[in-house]
Amino acid sequence: MGEKNHLGEFELIERFFAPLSGEGGFGLKDDAALMKVSPGKALVVTQDAIAEPVHFLPGNPPETIARKALRVNLSDLAAKGAVPTAFSLALGLGDAWREDWLEGFARGLAEDCRTYGLTLSGGDTFRTGGGTVISITAWGEIDPAQYRSRLTARPGDRLFVTGTIGEGALGLLAHTGKLPSLSAGTRDILERRYFVPEPPVSFAPLIAEFASASMDISDGFVGDLEKLATASGFDVEVNVPDIPFSREVREALDSGGVSPDRALESALSGGDDYQILFTVPESRVASFLEKAHKHSETGENTLVTPLAVIRKGSGRVRVLGDNGEPLEFAATSWRHF
Amino acid sequence: MGEKNHLGEFELIERFFAPLSGEGGFGLKDDAALMKVSPGKALVVTQDAIAEPVHFLPGNPPETIARKALRVNLSDLAAKGAVPTAFSLALGLGDAWREDWLEGFARGLAEDCRTYGLTLSGGDTFRTGGGTVISITAWGEIDPAQYRSRLTARPGDRLFVTGTIGEGALGLLAHTGKLPSLSAGTRDILERRYFVPEPPVSFAPLIAEFASASMDISDGFVGDLEKLATASGFDVEVNVPDIPFSREVREALDSGGVSPDRALESALSGGDDYQILFTVPESRVASFLEKAHKHSETGENTLVTPLAVIRKGSGRVRVLGDNGEPLEFAATSWRHF
Repeated sequence: MGEKNHLGEFELIERFFAPLSGEGGFGLKDDAALMKVSPGKALVVTQDAIAEPVHFLPGNPPETIARKALRVNLSDLAAKGAVPTAFSLALGLGDAWREDWLEGFARGLAEDCRTYGLTLSGGDTFRTGGGTVISITAWGEIDPAQYRSRLTARPGDRLFVTGTIGEGALGLLAHTGKLPSLSAGTRDILERRYFVPEPPVSFAPLIAEFASASMDISDGFVGDLEKLATASGFDVEVNVPDIPFSREVREALDSGGVSPDRALESALSGGDDYQILFTVPESRVASFLEKAHKHSETGENTLVTPLAVIRKGSGRVRVLGDNGEPLEFAATSWRHF
Repeated sequence: MGEKNHLGEFELIERFFAPLSGEGGFGLKDDAALMKVSPGKALVVTQDAIAEPVHFLPGNPPETIARKALRVNLSDLAAKGAVPTAFSLALGLGDAWREDWLEGFARGLAEDCRTYGLTLSGGDTFRTGGGTVISITAWGEIDPAQYRSRLTARPGDRLFVTGTIGEGALGLLAHTGKLPSLSAGTRDILERRYFVPEPPVSFAPLIAEFASASMDISDGFVGDLEKLATASGFDVEVNVPDIPFSREVREALDSGGVSPDRALESALSGGDDYQILFTVPESRVASFLEKAHKHSETGENTLVTPLAVIRKGSGRVRVLGDNGEPLEFAATSWRHF
């Protein structure tokens, strides 16, 4: 404990965060950042925060906390069709903060800056009276005509989802010992997805080009689909056999521990997916799928799964189980409050 | 207590924050915001956070907490020469949050949105394990050639400061009972400035037009002047009789309670000023003062005080007291860590 807290704010920024600064960030030596925007483009801006112990625990690896704090924002941008360029960070440290924690945190951020081609523009370090709080604001450029809100799906459009559903929620169950029969390899994969989500960032240009409406799945597949349906005004039925599950999720659903029904409910409503739910006008589905196929050949391999055709309505979502009966959920998404 | 916490996140946003949304904010119904930028302009972005109980206490009026959380960001933008246009908010609520607190908080934000012509673009509400945390990211447009960093002052430039110094720090002393001999009227004025700072937002265009370097004073006049001097590479001597103090600060300095020396040290190093320290090339001082004078005739009345001419150097700041002797400070600014 003799090692902790001897760095001042200036040294802390200089040592851990200034190396992540880029153009317009002035080496984090200034009060603000200057963000140029290409002619004809606008910025998409999002701000999401995570806090200890609600979203992570003191013992979690700081690298993964940093990457998750950043990636939950990249997920929002991808769902809007925007490729991220920079972010700012307000980092609130509790009294128990330690340099080695901060070092791991900065290392995780640096890794993702390289992965996604991002720079840190600035922000704030401050003390909290309690646990660590991480608030990130991220942005990216977009042709404003290609911004994809969740308000603009039209009846007859086809509903799609990227990637696979349920790893995050089942990863949390596995991490907290609620899926004891899982093989170690499967548990590792699910937990890793819970700690470090993999939003389909490189898929953003296809959302921009083809989607009629789009949002990211963060609070739960069913609940977020309800939000999309409510915002755009449609009804939809989704069959569970059409929902993309990974091999690991299928193993978890069958593994015992919690009942298969409860595990399925978690996978569909527990959140932490960070995939994209979006609609494509029927007339453009063929060309969309062709481009999506080409995109996956680049090695990015974003799975795209059609789920249903949406109907005029008012936000009603029915999820039909293997037997064709509608599933009942205690809650369709994770509630923040 | 039966009243508390029965709102969900959706209702909470809908009721308290959606009314503050503007163009590109989609009524806070979307995952992100779309921020258009005028041709030829860039964005200046800043993110500052405040946390309970470090920056405010549970009993403080929520209206003032909201306004301070916003204004500390506006202060950064003004110092860069930018007029603010919008902001996003990550609001972390502890378990003890109450609707009436949130109502006051939103009312304070709404008031400042009107005062400064701002809209809320989006953000996040989340739970913390401890106290309330407020992280705001604010931005404004600027001609990129007019962005004023703290790195670019040149020897021979004249150092200025806006407004008056010390109200915030002495307001906190008064609020915590350390200036018992103060008259009630003076105490009220100083406390109000501590709770709701008044950054010279409307002065930003003059900073953009005339300053060679600029920063806001948030952590303490002397410490922040040292930061400006270090960033730009200059030395400077400032005489205490040249530093602008309000009538209320002068009364506090003479009022007893803490010793006059300690009160002066607080005023000059305690922070919470949210004024602007900036330099103007000597050749432009006359036209700057003429425009500043005209600006103050509009009713905005931003006081501008010349302090010294800066010399080539390495960040050394000397503050000379009434008797011409250099003052010694235990700490030249508030330390965050």
